[in-house]
Amino acid sequence: MTDVYYNSWESSCKTPFGAVAAGEPVTFRIRCALKNINRVFLIIYKEGTPPQTLEMLKETVDSYSVHYRPQKGLYFYYFQFDQETESGVKLYYYGRAGNSGTGELVDNHNFLAHYQLTCYEGADKAPDWYREGIAYQIFPDRFFNGNPDNRVNHPKKNTFIYATQCDEPMYIKNAAGEIVRWDFFGGNLLGIKKKISYLKELGVSIIYLNPIFKASSNHRYDTDDYFEIDPMLGTREEFVSLVEALHQAGIRVILDGVFSHAGWNSRYFNRNKQYGETEGAYNNPESPYYDWFIFQEYPDKYTSWWNIQDLPEFNKHDPHFQQFIYGEADSVLSEWTPLVDGWRLDVADELPDFFIEQIRNRLAVYPDKVLIGEVWEDASNKISYNQRRQYILGGHLNGVMNYPLRRGIINLLLCKETPETVASHLMTLQENYPKEVFYNSFNNLGTHDTERILTMLNLDREKLDLALGFMFMMPGVPCIYYGDEAGLTGGKDPENRKFFPWGRESKSIYALFKKWVTVRQTQPAIQTGDLSLCYCKDMLGLIRYTDDEFVCYIMNPTDTVHTINCHHLTFLREVPFNQKQLANLLEGQIVFAKDYYLVSGKLDGKSYS
Amino acid sequence: MTDVYYNSWESSCKTPFGAVAAGEPVTFRIRCALKNINRVFLIIYKEGTPPQTLEMLKETVDSYSVHYRPQKGLYFYYFQFDQETESGVKLYYYGRAGNSGTGELVDNHNFLAHYQLTCYEGADKAPDWYREGIAYQIFPDRFFNGNPDNRVNHPKKNTFIYATQCDEPMYIKNAAGEIVRWDFFGGNLLGIKKKISYLKELGVSIIYLNPIFKASSNHRYDTDDYFEIDPMLGTREEFVSLVEALHQAGIRVILDGVFSHAGWNSRYFNRNKQYGETEGAYNNPESPYYDWFIFQEYPDKYTSWWNIQDLPEFNKHDPHFQQFIYGEADSVLSEWTPLVDGWRLDVADELPDFFIEQIRNRLAVYPDKVLIGEVWEDASNKISYNQRRQYILGGHLNGVMNYPLRRGIINLLLCKETPETVASHLMTLQENYPKEVFYNSFNNLGTHDTERILTMLNLDREKLDLALGFMFMMPGVPCIYYGDEAGLTGGKDPENRKFFPWGRESKSIYALFKKWVTVRQTQPAIQTGDLSLCYCKDMLGLIRYTDDEFVCYIMNPTDTVHTINCHHLTFLREVPFNQKQLANLLEGQIVFAKDYYLVSGKLDGKSYS
Repeated sequence: MTDVYYNSWESSCKTPFGAVAAGEPVTFRIRCALKNINRVFLIIYKEGTPPQTLEMLKETVDSYSVHYRPQKGLYFYYFQFDQETESGVKLYYYGRAGNSGTGELVDNHNFLAHYQLTCYEGADKAPDWYREGIAYQIFPDRFFNGNPDNRVNHPKKNTFIYATQCDEPMYIKNAAGEIVRWDFFGGNLLGIKKKISYLKELGVSIIYLNPIFKASSNHRYDTDDYFEIDPMLGTREEFVSLVEALHQAGIRVILDGVFSHAGWNSRYFNRNKQYGETEGAYNNPESPYYDWFIFQEYPDKYTSWWNIQDLPEFNKHDPHFQQFIYGEADSVLSEWTPLVDGWRLDVADELPDFFIEQIRNRLAVYPDKVLIGEVWEDASNKISYNQRRQYILGGHLNGVMNYPLRRGIINLLLCKETPETVASHLMTLQENYPKEVFYNSFNNLGTHDTERILTMLNLDREKLDLALGFMFMMPGVPCIYYGDEAGLTGGKDPENRKFFPWGRESKSIYALFKKWVTVRQTQPAIQTGDLSLCYCKDMLGLIRYTDDEFVCYIMNPTDTVHTINCHHLTFLREVPFNQKQLANLLEGQIVFAKDYYLVSGKLDGKSYS
Repeated sequence: MTDVYYNSWESSCKTPFGAVAAGEPVTFRIRCALKNINRVFLIIYKEGTPPQTLEMLKETVDSYSVHYRPQKGLYFYYFQFDQETESGVKLYYYGRAGNSGTGELVDNHNFLAHYQLTCYEGADKAPDWYREGIAYQIFPDRFFNGNPDNRVNHPKKNTFIYATQCDEPMYIKNAAGEIVRWDFFGGNLLGIKKKISYLKELGVSIIYLNPIFKASSNHRYDTDDYFEIDPMLGTREEFVSLVEALHQAGIRVILDGVFSHAGWNSRYFNRNKQYGETEGAYNNPESPYYDWFIFQEYPDKYTSWWNIQDLPEFNKHDPHFQQFIYGEADSVLSEWTPLVDGWRLDVADELPDFFIEQIRNRLAVYPDKVLIGEVWEDASNKISYNQRRQYILGGHLNGVMNYPLRRGIINLLLCKETPETVASHLMTLQENYPKEVFYNSFNNLGTHDTERILTMLNLDREKLDLALGFMFMMPGVPCIYYGDEAGLTGGKDPENRKFFPWGRESKSIYALFKKWVTVRQTQPAIQTGDLSLCYCKDMLGLIRYTDDEFVCYIMNPTDTVHTINCHHLTFLREVPFNQKQLANLLEGQIVFAKDYYLVSGKLDGKSYS
């Protein structure tokens, strides 16, 4: 037992747990057994404002507490102890230790790490269909071609079509490494429609579609026209019909909103005169779109996404452009939002906070829509372009793509991080995110931007099973990247964008996905229950619990058999029900190598399954 | 008038003109006005044998002659004059001056260029259908797709299909510049069949098909199996049906015989196990094909065409391989020759003389077949691999692809060579080739291996007209490279292999081709008549004549109008009919800039058209 103890993850030290709503009182309690302590302070500050020094009240002989009501914003805090010594007052500080909830005592500011306190405004609960959903990401060119004979709709001039659907995707580059032709398999909207029963059978209730608007590339992140469905994918009528059919099947649709930049072939920029001689900003400084872009030297020097010339960036401060994206009428959002169920904002880091907020405001007009964002790190404290971001403080994004979860799972299964480290990282996310935002996470084990999970796990299907189990047990909406359930492999882009192997699916891998979908569908605690992560030296687990039910999942990523020993098992948050009951349940359970132990039951202790 | 005069192109100096049949007496006559000449010698030698020194008979005061009967082979000769001087006998030599028929006197052997005398055995006249034909070269992947909806037959795994038929062809290479994927448009045999009426309408009577056997690439020079039609092109039945339909339409078929090398994916080499684990030489030293290749270090070091690893070279000395190609039964030739009308031997330089001879012997078994070869230079004196080649000395090739003609026409039209130079070059070919071989030439203005003629001529349609006129007027079979007649453009491979622009053909260019096809079809002198080239400072022309008819074509490649002046017009060979008549006809005719003058008539002088 150390002289000073504080653990932000324990209710004896901090209530409530994690992020708090604006104005909600937070109680901090720290234990201090140091000798000759005069006074104890909580030093807390909202980023960008001066710190407040709050003296803590001595509650018992070694316990100090204070209440604080933060306002919306990102706070940081630590503790200060004034110790009386012969030579005067000596100051000690206590701040966070690494990724844990506990801290450490230092006498030098330079070695002090601050705790974070997220304070949000308004609980950002996403609609039930989202929260209870199982999502499936479709990269439209690579899923299914619904035409007889696989005819490709409206092939684009000077592009290539893969000869067979088994072909390995590749980039076609010139000697300078620039992409010179786009490559297509020819998947389309009709293809998705024809696979609705397949998706239903798998248990999918949400589709996240990579971009579908007219574009030059196969990924379509280089939009040409936000008001036209890409002709290779189908017509507007086909899109409407697809969404209707999905909705009838109980499947919701999230679109990819790519508003940071356009394609240089777009109607708005029109670099290569696809839209006539004078339509775009590049061709005509009098163009209505001229102010949508930022030219350093007209027309060839302009701001573009990551300096990729094909992707000229929009000027989000231009009012005309803002209206175009999220205006009340005739905007991209007013055009498509009523048809679908939500948007995923591409490269949210590139969109200013006000821009995301306005998008969210526009969506609020429609019932039941969700807005998630592409953020790769902890979204609560993300800095982009020297700016701390407001993503999850309320009124911006409902949730973000959960890449940290993917990283944690993979690092654990590849034995690159210990169960403790992974558990602590994920616990930190849980702490930093408003609860509703955390539960709105869009979880994945891989996307079009990452290696496929089976490849990351070196084709180890047992580890895939563990990874799936963990993702499906976690708060947030699990999203299956098309084809992962069929056994598709592939490293980074473009390998991760193979065509769905219709007719060559792995039955055994499909069974794993189906199993975990079913577990999630049949265990309400997984949808809504609270979370406590747990670990021991070799295993990582979690418990999800409501007032009357729980599910516990413990996985052994190692190559040897382990037995659960409750003395060695650490729960990162106290489980608010009979610990002994849980201990009895888990104690002595054998978990085979690369296997898991799963138990669920009623909290009255009578029934376990 | 020089002191010594000999012109191998003039019948007063040498009879017969040009190459001679073995055993046929040749008369050489030289005029010499040098003082104190004692003796005059003809020094002649068959390559590889010691020179013979033949004293020439003094016929008149300044004229010497000698007869000589060469045997089959390539001869070179020059003249020697022994002049009596005060200090003894001084030797003068007279040899060829540049590309002309005349020569120059030197007193130093080192500055002496020898005349060539080609002596062949057996007049190699090709069948009439060939000699009277108008050919059309088809690169099968790029001509027409006969399937409804342009469906591509049996696309090959890990290849690309061009999205549209207007796409620009390209090579798909990796950073090291190696081709990593093949690209296809998907033209096929059914497509050719469906365009027979188009070909008929154009006047085509021969099709030269680029390779059609199973292969990996789009050009199919990397044969996988000589007994299988490439499945992308169609089935064997479709090929038989195509040839039948062509024959019914009066169109003959010449196949591309690629016998120098195989593809490394071939059944014979089987580098990547397309044909199972043990089929090919690469996988199995016990394979029946092992001896067909030349391994320096088994299996990865082997002789390949131009060191391109994908194209392992055959060992033409292997008896089993020889039988495979040209054996009496079960050989590639016995399989396909009866169906078609001839072969064009790819890279003839890579095939030893005996190999070509044996192929020719095999073809002799079938009536009415033709054998031409890919040789880029003057085939009469070509040296390949330090070996003087026997291509056209009889019993080998009927004729060769006439790239020198193409070069001459282009150089003239681009004003890179004078009319005199071009005329002399072509006259040299005419002199060096046996007449029948010269008339068997496979003439072209471009092939799959060259830039397209329209591009070479900077899109100048007037020059294209001149080029066509000249080619169609020349001895040899004119061959149209698919799409040239439709206005296709393109530089070197792959630009020259665009898909035929069906529906986007240039009507005006088609009309030029059609015009010259008609001229050739309606003027018998062009098929069979003798040839004399003529030129003046700015114009190049030719006259074709039989005993009773002639056609004369004179073109003005310059940008200014010229008037024909018969005093300035040089005929490289004397025209054996009334010169005055011809002069009267031509004299004073105006030839506009980049235009031509064409006249034909009966040799009695009564009718001209």
